[in-house]
Amino acid sequence: MDGHSITMLGTGLIADFYTNTLHGQRSRDQVRVVYSRSEPRAVDFSRRWSIPEHTTDLAAAINHPATDVVIVGLPNFLHAEAIELVAKAGKAVLCTKPLGRTAAEAKRMLDTVERAGIFAGYLEDLCYTPKSLKAVASVRAGAIGDVTWVRSRETHPGPHSAWFWDGRLTGGGAIVDLGCHCIEIIRNFVGKGNRPVEVLCHTDTLVHPIADEDNAVALIRFESGAIGQFEVSWTFRGGMDLRDEVAGTHGTIWMNHFLRTGFEMFTAGGGGGYVAEKAETSAGWLFPVGDEVSELGYVDMFSDMFRALDNGGTPQETFYDGYVVNAVMDAAYRSAKAHAWAPVELEWRGGSTPRIASAPETYEGQVVIKREVLPDGRQKLILKDPASGDFSDRVVAAS
Amino acid sequence: MDGHSITMLGTGLIADFYTNTLHGQRSRDQVRVVYSRSEPRAVDFSRRWSIPEHTTDLAAAINHPATDVVIVGLPNFLHAEAIELVAKAGKAVLCTKPLGRTAAEAKRMLDTVERAGIFAGYLEDLCYTPKSLKAVASVRAGAIGDVTWVRSRETHPGPHSAWFWDGRLTGGGAIVDLGCHCIEIIRNFVGKGNRPVEVLCHTDTLVHPIADEDNAVALIRFESGAIGQFEVSWTFRGGMDLRDEVAGTHGTIWMNHFLRTGFEMFTAGGGGGYVAEKAETSAGWLFPVGDEVSELGYVDMFSDMFRALDNGGTPQETFYDGYVVNAVMDAAYRSAKAHAWAPVELEWRGGSTPRIASAPETYEGQVVIKREVLPDGRQKLILKDPASGDFSDRVVAAS
Amino acid sequence: MDGHSITMLGTGLIADFYTNTLHGQRSRDQVRVVYSRSEPRAVDFSRRWSIPEHTTDLAAAINHPATDVVIVGLPNFLHAEAIELVAKAGKAVLCTKPLGRTAAEAKRMLDTVERAGIFAGYLEDLCYTPKSLKAVASVRAGAIGDVTWVRSRETHPGPHSAWFWDGRLTGGGAIVDLGCHCIEIIRNFVGKGNRPVEVLCHTDTLVHPIADEDNAVALIRFESGAIGQFEVSWTFRGGMDLRDEVAGTHGTIWMNHFLRTGFEMFTAGGGGGYVAEKAETSAGWLFPVGDEVSELGYVDMFSDMFRALDNGGTPQETFYDGYVVNAVMDAAYRSAKAHAWAPVELEWRGGSTPRIASAPETYEGQVVIKREVLPDGRQKLILKDPASGDFSDRVVAAS
Amino acid sequence: MDGHSITMLGTGLIADFYTNTLHGQRSRDQVRVVYSRSEPRAVDFSRRWSIPEHTTDLAAAINHPATDVVIVGLPNFLHAEAIELVAKAGKAVLCTKPLGRTAAEAKRMLDTVERAGIFAGYLEDLCYTPKSLKAVASVRAGAIGDVTWVRSRETHPGPHSAWFWDGRLTGGGAIVDLGCHCIEIIRNFVGKGNRPVEVLCHTDTLVHPIADEDNAVALIRFESGAIGQFEVSWTFRGGMDLRDEVAGTHGTIWMNHFLRTGFEMFTAGGGGGYVAEKAETSAGWLFPVGDEVSELGYVDMFSDMFRALDNGGTPQETFYDGYVVNAVMDAAYRSAKAHAWAPVELEWRGGSTPRIASAPETYEGQVVIKREVLPDGRQKLILKDPASGDFSDRVVAAS
Repeated sequence: MDGHSITMLGTGLIADFYTNTLHGQRSRDQVRVVYSRSEPRAVDFSRRWSIPEHTTDLAAAINHPATDVVIVGLPNFLHAEAIELVAKAGKAVLCTKPLGRTAAEAKRMLDTVERAGIFAGYLEDLCYTPKSLKAVASVRAGAIGDVTWVRSRETHPGPHSAWFWDGRLTGGGAIVDLGCHCIEIIRNFVGKGNRPVEVLCHTDTLVHPIADEDNAVALIRFESGAIGQFEVSWTFRGGMDLRDEVAGTHGTIWMNHFLRTGFEMFTAGGGGGYVAEKAETSAGWLFPVGDEVSELGYVDMFSDMFRALDNGGTPQETFYDGYVVNAVMDAAYRSAKAHAWAPVELEWRGGSTPRIASAPETYEGQVVIKREVLPDGRQKLILKDPASGDFSDRVVAAS
Repeated sequence: MDGHSITMLGTGLIADFYTNTLHGQRSRDQVRVVYSRSEPRAVDFSRRWSIPEHTTDLAAAINHPATDVVIVGLPNFLHAEAIELVAKAGKAVLCTKPLGRTAAEAKRMLDTVERAGIFAGYLEDLCYTPKSLKAVASVRAGAIGDVTWVRSRETHPGPHSAWFWDGRLTGGGAIVDLGCHCIEIIRNFVGKGNRPVEVLCHTDTLVHPIADEDNAVALIRFESGAIGQFEVSWTFRGGMDLRDEVAGTHGTIWMNHFLRTGFEMFTAGGGGGYVAEKAETSAGWLFPVGDEVSELGYVDMFSDMFRALDNGGTPQETFYDGYVVNAVMDAAYRSAKAHAWAPVELEWRGGSTPRIASAPETYEGQVVIKREVLPDGRQKLILKDPASGDFSDRVVAAS
Repeated sequence: MDGHSITMLGTGLIADFYTNTLHGQRSRDQVRVVYSRSEPRAVDFSRRWSIPEHTTDLAAAINHPATDVVIVGLPNFLHAEAIELVAKAGKAVLCTKPLGRTAAEAKRMLDTVERAGIFAGYLEDLCYTPKSLKAVASVRAGAIGDVTWVRSRETHPGPHSAWFWDGRLTGGGAIVDLGCHCIEIIRNFVGKGNRPVEVLCHTDTLVHPIADEDNAVALIRFESGAIGQFEVSWTFRGGMDLRDEVAGTHGTIWMNHFLRTGFEMFTAGGGGGYVAEKAETSAGWLFPVGDEVSELGYVDMFSDMFRALDNGGTPQETFYDGYVVNAVMDAAYRSAKAHAWAPVELEWRGGSTPRIASAPETYEGQVVIKREVLPDGRQKLILKDPASGDFSDRVVAAS
Repeated sequence: MDGHSITMLGTGLIADFYTNTLHGQRSRDQVRVVYSRSEPRAVDFSRRWSIPEHTTDLAAAINHPATDVVIVGLPNFLHAEAIELVAKAGKAVLCTKPLGRTAAEAKRMLDTVERAGIFAGYLEDLCYTPKSLKAVASVRAGAIGDVTWVRSRETHPGPHSAWFWDGRLTGGGAIVDLGCHCIEIIRNFVGKGNRPVEVLCHTDTLVHPIADEDNAVALIRFESGAIGQFEVSWTFRGGMDLRDEVAGTHGTIWMNHFLRTGFEMFTAGGGGGYVAEKAETSAGWLFPVGDEVSELGYVDMFSDMFRALDNGGTPQETFYDGYVVNAVMDAAYRSAKAHAWAPVELEWRGGSTPRIASAPETYEGQVVIKREVLPDGRQKLILKDPASGDFSDRVVAAS
């Protein structure tokens, strides 16, 4: 029943979300030490969340004798250094997304934690939203047949912190910020053993005066033939649009995680305050979210991480997953540059997945393309002659 | 950081939901002992939730030396006896809804716990849904002005357990099962200090061959003039419909807690399994809920209860609230019988609330009924002459 | 293939909607003469809609030799006089809602047109929305079993014209303006032969400084036992909320006619213009309607009227229906005053409707209350012993 | 006020929709002659719609002296021949989508009608849905700023007629059937003068045993930089999913034309019948459409066509538009084959469109990337140093 004592690295928006979750509800886990590069931010943060100690010394924060878990909530360009130090300290490490700025960097972090033999979890919250967890379970149980196509969309009007806009520090633009979520969501639906083979990506900088992409659309072709499609944008207007759509041979799943979740408010103004992350207005029709840290997956994410840590198991999202995501993003950038499909280059550990297959039904030697029920109960068959390739209709009695 | 050790009384659907919540995520609280009137059900339940001990001896369960909190998840007609025993044991008690079968019975339970000086919480989960908590906070902050009207609707195709259908054991029909939720939701929105004055209720038994109502609609008039409207049914088709709608002088809130929450699935069948509480179908278009125990308020409810218990405070929902709810339900039944408004009879502790008031704007000595912006930017005023009572239009320059 | 030549009485919002519809798409009908009490408004209107003639002489407009149909789009207090004149002219008459200010007045108009033997249609557009027409057809075909409950809701922030606010001219407040729609929608779903027996109504003036109600909720009990529930308000914030919900023994229908129809727009402002009737904002999230005159029923309403006129038939909505609506509104006002159920007083022509009935299934001599499918495919029955009234569970093999 | 007398070529689903629309409401236009390749289908069709004459002689149908307009509702491979004949007859011609099987074929048809000088309209109904018309008008008025991205999605479980499945007769698979709609919808939003430059497309045959694609996703890059994205599928489960999403620099538009339009029905079964085009189930939760021919654009489409014809004008959708659509589809197929971007090859008449441009705001010599309002009313600026490319935060007073 004992909880974990945590060192939090970073004091930005993501560290706020993490600590809010860790200290929320009836949790037995607590942040014990917080590190920031800035003394005032470290002080503010420790007061805001009642954290006993703060420091601007990264190594001291990581090596603090009272903590057993280190959470990396730092800007992308600082992940590698922090993970190196945690590995030396021999503690469990949980790292925010994206793992690295490139697959090469992510691979080095993966190697580091594997060599050190420490527990390492990849904090990809949006794979843990309650809707996603239930939807993935339904897909595994066969509710929609074989997955053919997954669309994951994450768009908003742009990040809150200056460093996010600097591709030199992050590794890119909207793809690195948002596409990493989409890619891993897609992988959970098509199956983690389903190898991402190649990527076709279009990027553009349409609105903001920056060097990196503020919009991107990409297709990922998986070994099974399934298509993953991600759409990311820093120029969306109206709030934060997080939607996933999954198509299968026998069903369909639609999920809206943020803007349309059954909570709608109109206000003539006044009495405002915080509506939701990235909300753009505080009057008119607003669409708040009930419990953001739950709806965005933070609660289930940390539960899974600590359960795996306590049981000596593997969390749902690992550093290897983070590395795969980086490899797909690398391919996306190469594709966008080459204006053509680019292969995903990675050390694949996931095995092999067969092609989506359907053994077509036959009727009197012809291939049944489709069955439709007519108003009188009879069925209309659309048939294909395997020899000539000709198509024809046939009406038959109710089956 | 210590958690609570709990005696759970009851092994039905509600005890499952409670224990699922208590043992969920990173909780530090655990059910230690479970009581059922039936030995096999006690055994099943204790295995299902890894509970160390089970018993069919009510007093033994309550007095078990290892537990400090007792949760009453029994049928309505057994609440009073259980609470009497917990009061004697001097432990904290949390009782499921409705508190009593009548206001008189609820009042006796309230008196019992107050005399004993024990901590007592009323487990009204739907007042704790994340959406409700945020919406109530917005209302308190003034986002929709004065509340004028609250509609709370709870309908489904009927309960799962036989005893629920027997009004002799429960105190009534759909009102006692579902109306209790609605009444307390309404109270949270109009303000708990806003006295429920009278009730107008219509009940009928339209579908099921039972003695009690399977449908009811009621209006509650509060001291401020606000109207509470509840709609309950055991004959709704399509799943469980939980919706709350709040109207204010400056805004509107709509909440859908179950059937339309941004999660939609179509399945041609197969791979089914549990969809959601009271779901009626397992093929076609389905509307699952992400995390039921969170969306239905159980998580926040227990957090509030234990936080209050640990801090020596008062939870949001108390036995007094349960008593008020019973008093309103009593009035509803009296009204339905009398076919007229019935006064709410209760010992009121809530103080007084002023009438919804608006000081009308005036324009050149006339009362402004409405302002409308015209396409050219000018404003059209609808004015009322206070002397003659005549109405007129006036177009004025943009304000 | 010949169309109709129309005299339009009135130049307000409703006359605009009517003429927009009549002159829209490929219509063969045209407004030939328009009447207004105000010369400038007559001129404006005739120019706006390319109408050949306008006049401020009511009798001249009605008796104009070139027109065969007169449409009454005047304020409520002018309906009776206009209809008297049309009856004398022997032309077909179509009258806007509500027919009269009271049932007595409506009855006189009904008698007038029946004595004159002229075609008379009641322009109740919201019974003709495409969704309503299809939904009523589904209900007639048995899709939801017996109708048990219909909720019709019409709310917005208040009318656009001064006379609407003066109960001396209209006959009341929000009930007369909006409740008339709801009542007739409800009648279409429960069946027009289903007698409205009594009404329970609560009215209040919560926000606007006027003498009549700006909010009302009412229950209508029909002969079959079905409940009609209407909710009207002139204080709703957020636009115009038109929703109908129908519950049956075997199904459910939900219709949203205006604010949530699959058309959503966010705008940071600029490029505004007309959004939709009663829209309150022109920035932020907006919810326009595709084709208002179609979605609100005007197109199908006039098609039905002219088809009936051309074929010597009866339209869906007649002056008798208008009279029934007035009778129900009268009962609503009496109920609100008496704070009790009030009988509906009217000359009933609709015949008799049996009570909603269900012959309960039995199982081994016990009444089956409910069947539930268990995860393993077996069924759980909830049974009632007809002798003792006791309830019990029974698990049986899959049926 | 005279209407048109029409020859209808074809008796399939589309001819039913067209005739239903032409004969609907108060229309002054009538189908006078119907042609089918099959005598029984011609007879059935003429009876179903009360059409005076039917024939299996194509030339006779087209040259019939009583008709002035010919509507081509034939399978794709018969368009060219029919249009040739209509051109010779010198009548107005309206042709269903897609215009040709290839751009070359479409160009020949365009040349044919231009040489003959006849009125020619392209029957692209989904560009005329009431929602689309209003949305395009809002975009033109500036409501969402510059359009950056348009997603148009049309998916269902596959066509109803055998010939549709035979790419030899149609020119392809789901792209030719459905993509043609999406491309023209996208063009209406990005502007018809905005040249489609190149296409990136992925196609696959994932489920049906056919030679052509049953799924495709494509990106179209326009001269302005705007991205058009279309998604088409013959393997979607759950009905027909028609959605358009438009992103602009200052706003967002979401349209759902079919499955979620504010009309929801649950039925336990029974009383079924037609729900909506391509609906897959007749029990459980169903999502009918109010008035299909209106919601799908047929009503406004024919109104525009006949208005243009009567006034000597040009309809919104012309044969040139049909040709552009074919050119984009050709590029999509070439791209899918080449696995790379393919240029759109066409004779462009649309002029030139400037690049989406935004003149970034500056603050003390730095570029303003973003402004955010803080809870205390102050603003946080994210700034970029144009010299170093470094980003920084700056908090300033409320503007």
